[in-house]
Amino acid sequence: MVVIGAGFAGLSAARELARAGKKVALLEARDRIGGRTISEDIGGTEFCLGAQWIGANQHRMAALADEYGFERFPTWTTGTKTLELKGNVSTYESDIPSLPWLHLLELQLTMWRIDRHVDLVPVDHPIKSPYSDEWEEITVAAWERRNIRSRRVRGLIDSMVRIVFGMEPSELSLLRFLAYMRSGGGLNSVVEAENGAQQWRVVGGTQAIAQKMADELGKSLFLSTPVRSIEYTDKRVRVFSDELSWTAKKCIVAIPPHLAGKIDYSPPVPALRDQLTQRFPMGQTAKVVTTYERPFWRHKGFSGEVVCDGAPITIVYDNTTKDGVPALLSFVVGDNARRWGAMPAEARRMQILESLGRWFGPEAKKPVAYGEKDWGNDPWAGGCPTASPTPGTMTVAWEALRKPVGPIHWAGTETAVEWTGYMEGAVQSGERAAREVLSS
Amino acid sequence: MVVIGAGFAGLSAARELARAGKKVALLEARDRIGGRTISEDIGGTEFCLGAQWIGANQHRMAALADEYGFERFPTWTTGTKTLELKGNVSTYESDIPSLPWLHLLELQLTMWRIDRHVDLVPVDHPIKSPYSDEWEEITVAAWERRNIRSRRVRGLIDSMVRIVFGMEPSELSLLRFLAYMRSGGGLNSVVEAENGAQQWRVVGGTQAIAQKMADELGKSLFLSTPVRSIEYTDKRVRVFSDELSWTAKKCIVAIPPHLAGKIDYSPPVPALRDQLTQRFPMGQTAKVVTTYERPFWRHKGFSGEVVCDGAPITIVYDNTTKDGVPALLSFVVGDNARRWGAMPAEARRMQILESLGRWFGPEAKKPVAYGEKDWGNDPWAGGCPTASPTPGTMTVAWEALRKPVGPIHWAGTETAVEWTGYMEGAVQSGERAAREVLSS
Repeated sequence: MVVIGAGFAGLSAARELARAGKKVALLEARDRIGGRTISEDIGGTEFCLGAQWIGANQHRMAALADEYGFERFPTWTTGTKTLELKGNVSTYESDIPSLPWLHLLELQLTMWRIDRHVDLVPVDHPIKSPYSDEWEEITVAAWERRNIRSRRVRGLIDSMVRIVFGMEPSELSLLRFLAYMRSGGGLNSVVEAENGAQQWRVVGGTQAIAQKMADELGKSLFLSTPVRSIEYTDKRVRVFSDELSWTAKKCIVAIPPHLAGKIDYSPPVPALRDQLTQRFPMGQTAKVVTTYERPFWRHKGFSGEVVCDGAPITIVYDNTTKDGVPALLSFVVGDNARRWGAMPAEARRMQILESLGRWFGPEAKKPVAYGEKDWGNDPWAGGCPTASPTPGTMTVAWEALRKPVGPIHWAGTETAVEWTGYMEGAVQSGERAAREVLSS
Repeated sequence: MVVIGAGFAGLSAARELARAGKKVALLEARDRIGGRTISEDIGGTEFCLGAQWIGANQHRMAALADEYGFERFPTWTTGTKTLELKGNVSTYESDIPSLPWLHLLELQLTMWRIDRHVDLVPVDHPIKSPYSDEWEEITVAAWERRNIRSRRVRGLIDSMVRIVFGMEPSELSLLRFLAYMRSGGGLNSVVEAENGAQQWRVVGGTQAIAQKMADELGKSLFLSTPVRSIEYTDKRVRVFSDELSWTAKKCIVAIPPHLAGKIDYSPPVPALRDQLTQRFPMGQTAKVVTTYERPFWRHKGFSGEVVCDGAPITIVYDNTTKDGVPALLSFVVGDNARRWGAMPAEARRMQILESLGRWFGPEAKKPVAYGEKDWGNDPWAGGCPTASPTPGTMTVAWEALRKPVGPIHWAGTETAVEWTGYMEGAVQSGERAAREVLSS
C-alpha cells in the first residue's frame, strides 16, 4: 500500500495499515512530517506554529496524545477579554461580549438562528439538508447583510468566520459554513476554548505526536518525496516521485484537495473529481508568537484573548507554555493575511506589535522573541487552516469528495465527517480510508 | 524567450516575439496545438468541437482569419426559435421569447437592470466598480432569487449563465458575471449570434487558424512537452519538462489559471498568486454535433435554435457547414455536463437524440453521424469554455492576475481585458504579454 502525505491523515492511515500487517510506503513531499502542524524554536522555546489545540470533544486526538504519553493542559482563559469592533475597543469579564444591549440581542438571535440551521444539516451528507440549494447559493457575507443590522455584530461574525476558515465571508457558502459547524459539534463547540475546539494544548507540541506516529513506521517513511504522477488500473497503482516509483494494490492520497489535483493521473480522474479539486481552495492564516519576560497582561487582569474585526490581527490568545514562558499568540487570517504577508518583515512585525500595544499596553511592544509562520508561503499547504469548497460546489460535486477512483482512495481532514478541518478530522479521515482499503 | 501553452494566447505571444526577432520556444503539453479549439471528423466532415465562433466585434480574430485567408460565414439564425422552460415548450419568430406578457416584462426589466449594472463595471479594473464588495459577495443565483419572481424568467437567465460560463449561477459572483459581460461589450453582445459573439463561423475551422500561426513558428514549437516546474531569479528563468529544459530571460505562461497553479515554481510564487490560482476553476461544457441527410428543421421553418433550462441540452444551434452538410450543435453545460458526462456513451447519445426529437420531430433522432467532446475529460483544459474566479476572489486576489512574478508573465484568455473567455481574449492577452516582455 502507498500513502501520500505524512500529516495526521496520512500518518493515521499508514499506521492503521502497518498495524494490520500491510507493507506500507508513506511518501511525503516536505523534508519533515506533520503537515499543517509544526514546532519551531522561538527564543529558545518550542511553539506550535500550525494546528495546536485538541478540542474538548476530539477523542481521537486525545487518545493519541494519551497513547504516546503527551501531557495536556488547558488553554488559559482567565481574566478580562478585549473586543475591537469598527475601531471601538471594549473589555468584558463574563462570556457575554461588551456590546450595547440591542446589539447583544441581535448577536444572540444570530447565534441562535445559526444553531437552528446547523441542526438541519446532516453530518455525513450536508447536501441532503432541506434547504441545501438555497444555502449553497448564498454566501455567508450576503446572508449576514440580509440578516444582521448592527455593523458591530456583523464585524464579530465576520471575525469568527475568518478565524475558523481563514477566508472572507464572501468566499464561503452558508451551507459550507453550517456543515463545518455541524461537523465540529455546533457553533459554540467550534469557536470556544473552554469545552470547545481550543480546549487543550499539548506539552511538547502537536508535531511531536505526529513524530511518534512516524517513528512507528520506521523505514516505510520517505521524506522529500513529492508525488508527481499516478498511473492506475482497477487492480494496481504505480506512484511516481522525481526519481523513485512504487507499485501497490491500493493507494491513499492524504493531502489537501487542491494539491491532490496537482498530481498527474493516468488515466485522468473522472471530470467530476477534477472539477471538485479545482473548487476547493485553502484559507489563509499566519500565526505570530511573541514571548515576554513576564505575563504582564495577566497581572493587569487580562486573559490575553482579543477579537478584532480590523487589521492585521483577528484573534489573540494567551500562549504561555506549561512551564511558564509567557507568550501571546496572534492570528492573521483571510484577506488580512494576504495583505500583511505581502509586506516586508519589519513592517509585519511592527503592525503586530502596534496592535498588541493598543490592547495590552507598551510592554506588549517589547517581546523577548518574535516568531511567525505564514502558511500561504508554504507551497505544500497553500494556506491554512483548511480548504473549503467554493459556493455552488457542494450541491454540484460533493459526491466526488470521498469516492475512490479505481484503487485510489482519498483522505485528509477536508474529507472528514467529524471535525473536518482539524487534526481530529485528519485522523478520522485516515482511519476511514485505511478501513476502506483493508476491507476491499 | 519561452512561451508555455500553444492555444491562441500562447501562439499569439510567440508569434509577436518571433516577429520581433526574438528566439522563442513554445511548449505545449498536448500532442496538438489549439488549446480549447479542436477540429474533429464527424461522418467525413470536419467540425469545431471547441471554440468555433468569431464575434461581430472581435476584430483580432477577424484579422487573423483574414490574414491567413480563412473565409467566414454567418451563423444560421433564420426561422422559428424554440424555448423550453420548466418543461413548457414554446416557439417564437421574432427576437422576443414566447413568454406570457408579465414574464416578458420581468425579463426585459431584468436584462435592463443587468445592463445598467454592467455599465458601472470598469473594463480594465472591474473591482473598482462602485458596488464591488456587494456584487462580489452575492452569487448570481442569490441575486436572481431576490430580483426575479417568475420561475420561467429565472430559468432563462440560468440557461444564459450556464451557456456563457459553463457554470451554475450559484458558482459565480454577480461581479464576475457583470465584469465578463462588460469585457464582451454587454449582455446582448455576449449572448447573441447576430451582431454578437456567435456571429461568424470559419470555413476550415478555428483550429486551422491556430495551425497557421504554429506553422510560422516552425521548429520553435515543442508538442507533447508538459511543463512540470519553473526555476527563476529576477533575471533568468529555467523551464523544465519531463526530459528537456530551457533557459531564457523571460517566460510567458499562457495556460488556464488552475493549470498554471499546477506547475512547481521555485521559489514559490507569492501567496496571493497561489491563492488566486486555487480560486479559478473551469466551467464544464460538452459539445455534441449531429449531422443529417437534409436540414429538415429548416424545411419545417425552424432556425435550429433552442434554449432549455432542463437536462441535458441547454442550447442548440444550426451547425450546417458552408458547403451544406446539415448539422445541429448541442451544448451540455454546467451541472448537466457533469451528470451527462458520467453516463455511458450509449445513454449520453440517447438523451441527446431524445431531446432533439422532442423539439424537431423524429427525424432528429436519426443522425447520419454523431460526435461529441466532453472538455471535462481533457486534463489539459479541465473543462470549458472558460475559468472563472469563485465568489469573493475578485475583491481579494484580483491584483495577482496579470502581475508578473520576476521574469514570469501571465497570458491566457482568463487574463484578458477585452473578450475574456473567448479566442479574442486569448489573442489580446498573448499580445499584451508579448508587449510586456519586449518592453522590459
